[in-house]
Amino acid sequence: MRGNSFGKLFSLTSFGESHGPAIGVIVDGVPSSLNVSLRDLNKVLSRRAPGKMAGTSTRQEEDLPEILSGVYKNKTLGTPIAVIVRNTNQRSGDYRWAEREFRVGHADKTTLDKYGIRDPRGGGRSSGRETIARVIAGYFASLIIPQIEVAAYLVKVGALSGEDLLHKKRVENYLQGLQKRGESVGGVVAVKIKNVPAGLGEPAFDKLKADLGKAFLSIGGCVAFSFGMGESLANSYGSENAQDRSRFGGIEGGISNGEDIYLEASFKPPSTVGKKAQQGRHDPSIVMRAIPVIESMAKIVLADHFLRQQAYVKERK
Amino acid sequence: MRGNSFGKLFSLTSFGESHGPAIGVIVDGVPSSLNVSLRDLNKVLSRRAPGKMAGTSTRQEEDLPEILSGVYKNKTLGTPIAVIVRNTNQRSGDYRWAEREFRVGHADKTTLDKYGIRDPRGGGRSSGRETIARVIAGYFASLIIPQIEVAAYLVKVGALSGEDLLHKKRVENYLQGLQKRGESVGGVVAVKIKNVPAGLGEPAFDKLKADLGKAFLSIGGCVAFSFGMGESLANSYGSENAQDRSRFGGIEGGISNGEDIYLEASFKPPSTVGKKAQQGRHDPSIVMRAIPVIESMAKIVLADHFLRQQAYVKERK
Amino acid sequence: MRGNSFGKLFSLTSFGESHGPAIGVIVDGVPSSLNVSLRDLNKVLSRRAPGKMAGTSTRQEEDLPEILSGVYKNKTLGTPIAVIVRNTNQRSGDYRWAEREFRVGHADKTTLDKYGIRDPRGGGRSSGRETIARVIAGYFASLIIPQIEVAAYLVKVGALSGEDLLHKKRVENYLQGLQKRGESVGGVVAVKIKNVPAGLGEPAFDKLKADLGKAFLSIGGCVAFSFGMGESLANSYGSENAQDRSRFGGIEGGISNGEDIYLEASFKPPSTVGKKAQQGRHDPSIVMRAIPVIESMAKIVLADHFLRQQAYVKERK
Amino acid sequence: MRGNSFGKLFSLTSFGESHGPAIGVIVDGVPSSLNVSLRDLNKVLSRRAPGKMAGTSTRQEEDLPEILSGVYKNKTLGTPIAVIVRNTNQRSGDYRWAEREFRVGHADKTTLDKYGIRDPRGGGRSSGRETIARVIAGYFASLIIPQIEVAAYLVKVGALSGEDLLHKKRVENYLQGLQKRGESVGGVVAVKIKNVPAGLGEPAFDKLKADLGKAFLSIGGCVAFSFGMGESLANSYGSENAQDRSRFGGIEGGISNGEDIYLEASFKPPSTVGKKAQQGRHDPSIVMRAIPVIESMAKIVLADHFLRQQAYVKERK
Repeated sequence: MRGNSFGKLFSLTSFGESHGPAIGVIVDGVPSSLNVSLRDLNKVLSRRAPGKMAGTSTRQEEDLPEILSGVYKNKTLGTPIAVIVRNTNQRSGDYRWAEREFRVGHADKTTLDKYGIRDPRGGGRSSGRETIARVIAGYFASLIIPQIEVAAYLVKVGALSGEDLLHKKRVENYLQGLQKRGESVGGVVAVKIKNVPAGLGEPAFDKLKADLGKAFLSIGGCVAFSFGMGESLANSYGSENAQDRSRFGGIEGGISNGEDIYLEASFKPPSTVGKKAQQGRHDPSIVMRAIPVIESMAKIVLADHFLRQQAYVKERK
Repeated sequence: MRGNSFGKLFSLTSFGESHGPAIGVIVDGVPSSLNVSLRDLNKVLSRRAPGKMAGTSTRQEEDLPEILSGVYKNKTLGTPIAVIVRNTNQRSGDYRWAEREFRVGHADKTTLDKYGIRDPRGGGRSSGRETIARVIAGYFASLIIPQIEVAAYLVKVGALSGEDLLHKKRVENYLQGLQKRGESVGGVVAVKIKNVPAGLGEPAFDKLKADLGKAFLSIGGCVAFSFGMGESLANSYGSENAQDRSRFGGIEGGISNGEDIYLEASFKPPSTVGKKAQQGRHDPSIVMRAIPVIESMAKIVLADHFLRQQAYVKERK
Repeated sequence: MRGNSFGKLFSLTSFGESHGPAIGVIVDGVPSSLNVSLRDLNKVLSRRAPGKMAGTSTRQEEDLPEILSGVYKNKTLGTPIAVIVRNTNQRSGDYRWAEREFRVGHADKTTLDKYGIRDPRGGGRSSGRETIARVIAGYFASLIIPQIEVAAYLVKVGALSGEDLLHKKRVENYLQGLQKRGESVGGVVAVKIKNVPAGLGEPAFDKLKADLGKAFLSIGGCVAFSFGMGESLANSYGSENAQDRSRFGGIEGGISNGEDIYLEASFKPPSTVGKKAQQGRHDPSIVMRAIPVIESMAKIVLADHFLRQQAYVKERK
Repeated sequence: MRGNSFGKLFSLTSFGESHGPAIGVIVDGVPSSLNVSLRDLNKVLSRRAPGKMAGTSTRQEEDLPEILSGVYKNKTLGTPIAVIVRNTNQRSGDYRWAEREFRVGHADKTTLDKYGIRDPRGGGRSSGRETIARVIAGYFASLIIPQIEVAAYLVKVGALSGEDLLHKKRVENYLQGLQKRGESVGGVVAVKIKNVPAGLGEPAFDKLKADLGKAFLSIGGCVAFSFGMGESLANSYGSENAQDRSRFGGIEGGISNGEDIYLEASFKPPSTVGKKAQQGRHDPSIVMRAIPVIESMAKIVLADHFLRQQAYVKERK
């Protein structure tokens, strides 16, 4: 009820402050006897780790997941899967400025408004480290829907878009330049999802578009969501769309139609006030790091809806 | 679980097919002893009714709500409030074409994919009539948060925007022109919400932006959602935003900050294939009719989060 | 959240005060394309109606169900099924005494404590009429698990037990005697459930015994629940039980084991203060009327757990 | 959905197999700024540990809780509280017999029926060690309702009842005798709860008696639940009860009436087949160990309903 759980039949419950002992997640609703590969889990986690690309935060975290339950001899037991990642890099001193300063557009002040107390050592629950829980859950979601391919990619990073984004070096240079100036930019991430079975999504309220939208908007920094042709559909004529089902991004009436799903999420620039940005120790953009998180959230929603549909469909025959 | 309920502490469960006996809603979680005005409820419902404005669907429905429970002598009892609206205008013949034709971008085909059966007499659950349930629930939500002002308005209707939209006649003419041509357009609705207390929203997953996004995206035809400066924040620099809290639309870190909340929702053009459009008996745009629905969904989310916060806050003192 | 819904994948939301316009229920999670028989639904409802047996309340209600949604041409659509029953027998005058008098063991006073307001015209939500919602939902539950047989029967009515209960006339005479004296008695209902598949029940908390227990204890007047040999197991030796799986009533470790399930529920005597009892216009016992309600609640729990298990099991292969 | 979570506004999610790396719990919905004492938490946990009393299991576990999140400088943050306890005593060899033998009345076989796989090293999720999660959550629940006193005590242990149970030595001798014979017995635990505010409990389905019943019945080995005079009310006359509110155990109409709540739970004898019992390395009864678990579950239900009532009540004024 306090909002730390997501999903119905496939669900995750996330916990952990960025500077507490650990970040972790309980993944429940994973069917039994699925194969778990710790190597794959590590690979997914390392994709979200910062410091892998020039121009992302230099904090060198080592995110080693420990599976505490629900897996036995590399098989899921059907019981809740708990995974934790210790916070090893707790240089509390770095964050002392945060006690006095509330970053605009950030949870600093509203957390205090809401709870009357907060862990001043970092973002707490609002830290980007919370996404570790999502990425771990996304890995287990993918075991349920192995046939579904989810690929997120950059559409825009500040001034860069189109072909620019295909040149890794160009992007790195751009971000390093921003970092030196204590500056940051926003961006847009797109997701293409292939091999989605028709029939996923639960009207009236748990439409696939609605649950995907909530999933993405629950990520820190995400400020807009659209699917299919999105906002540009607002500028179109009905007659144009009547011929072209692809404009609706694989979702009609809130239900997957079996075609590719296309989604976009926009992110604001990270807040750049304070000593940290002055020292160039901030993320000049979060869109790169958002990619594995976006993919994970998409998988979580799809796995959940896949199980929801399965619960009822067998009965139909 | 089948997706017909929305909200946690303030919740609605919607039911009814467009051409079945009735559309209705159970509103649960309304505190006791609040004053109910049937006149106000009727007023809200008549705002969403079509046929009030030239250029909206000519189907003349009379949506008379009947309160079946939860209210006694104009006071809420704290028990579930059931309200139904009979479907009086069930000209089944009009919709026979729908059995053979699946409108693109509509639930026609995906409903069949999902359930293996559907009521062919109209949109069924995907009909715009389902929004009656939302508007009724929105009325009861407003009793919980009477101080909060929610106002939705048009930002774009097809080719019209800005000042054009201030001239009612101009909009009507534009829509009538579309209707005659069997054409339809999309649009954008904005919402401004005043007097929201700070502290509403439940990270990590039930952030206020995430729940508002889901609420809007669950409306038929809504294809994009943003808050604050939304997608244009993706184009901004962190340094610009650092000075101007208003860019974040009243929500920081997923929690309301006490300032005005600003949201936008984009709608696609209604599908225009089939005999109905040829006869000019279709809605050339749904954005006008979306306005009271958008307002209702915003109130529902806010009332829910208001009660959720209240559950915990008293303890703090 | 206000407690008017029950079940996860198969769920009901109950509404209605005994003397308001109607009692009703939304049944959600019924798979599509199942055959609905209004005749069967009426039969189930008439089983719970009072006045069918000498010695039960003389209030002659006619409980005619109206299906408002979710069923088309006698088939379930997979959408929420709303059913209402009008309250035709609203002799408000009969209940005026209730405004001044709080029946001991009844919700009269606690309802006022809780909500600060109540409908004084009768039991309101605590009336036995609320069970109409459960019986209707039980009918739809039985469509999901047609192979499972649920049979409840009397084990004890006041001083009567064993063979006495097999003689309908003897029971009627006993109850009529009580009624004349303004007296009432409690009793015990047992349920035997056959053909339950193994594997239903979700540890740790949604064990089958726990959900069945909650289901029965949520019925007005139910004061005790047990399964298998129940309380008498507390008096047994482990070595005795080791040979006889049947002592555990078809449930081991909270999960059905494929054998018959055996449950018992005890009911208190109805409250007998006030003018109504003096006039002999009260139920001298509620156990007879509890039988179809108990059966319905059992079916609801089993249908829910059946769907829950189905959601995950297909994956296993 | 897989049944590992309990509670709405105050909730726990339990995880961990008895012989996996750890047992743990996420407690969500604890208001912020409450004082946490690790010493008190340890005290509560040590009460449930075995080996403290002659005649209980000799497995010497050291259950050291580690708080991973949600607490900062001994204050709750309002964020999810994760606590784990490592399984230090994993003598897998001891349990090898379990692969070949299914204990009657135990989850051994049904777990395999349900999931098609199980951790054969011990009870897995069905082990008594799972109750660690409940006891930890019970501690945090008590912070929300510090004024409410919950005391569970033995009413019956096998052949012992009444005064016998007041002599600790007598009980120990009795249990040691059973242990030597490889025998086990059931028993009954009662709970008295003082200072419960009136108005807790949510009809129709989340009645206080229903949620308490579910909470107790979800404990391994619990086979019966009653409140107030329970089953013996089935034998009483309505006229007797009319004078004596205490017979209803503090709950009327499913809502607390402000008086003491009285509950009883019956437990079966632990299963005693297999090598372990032959070696006298089993619990001859679980009722002693059930006491802190019963208390914890009662606190969890009360804290949850306290917050649920609080969410709505403030509005009433």
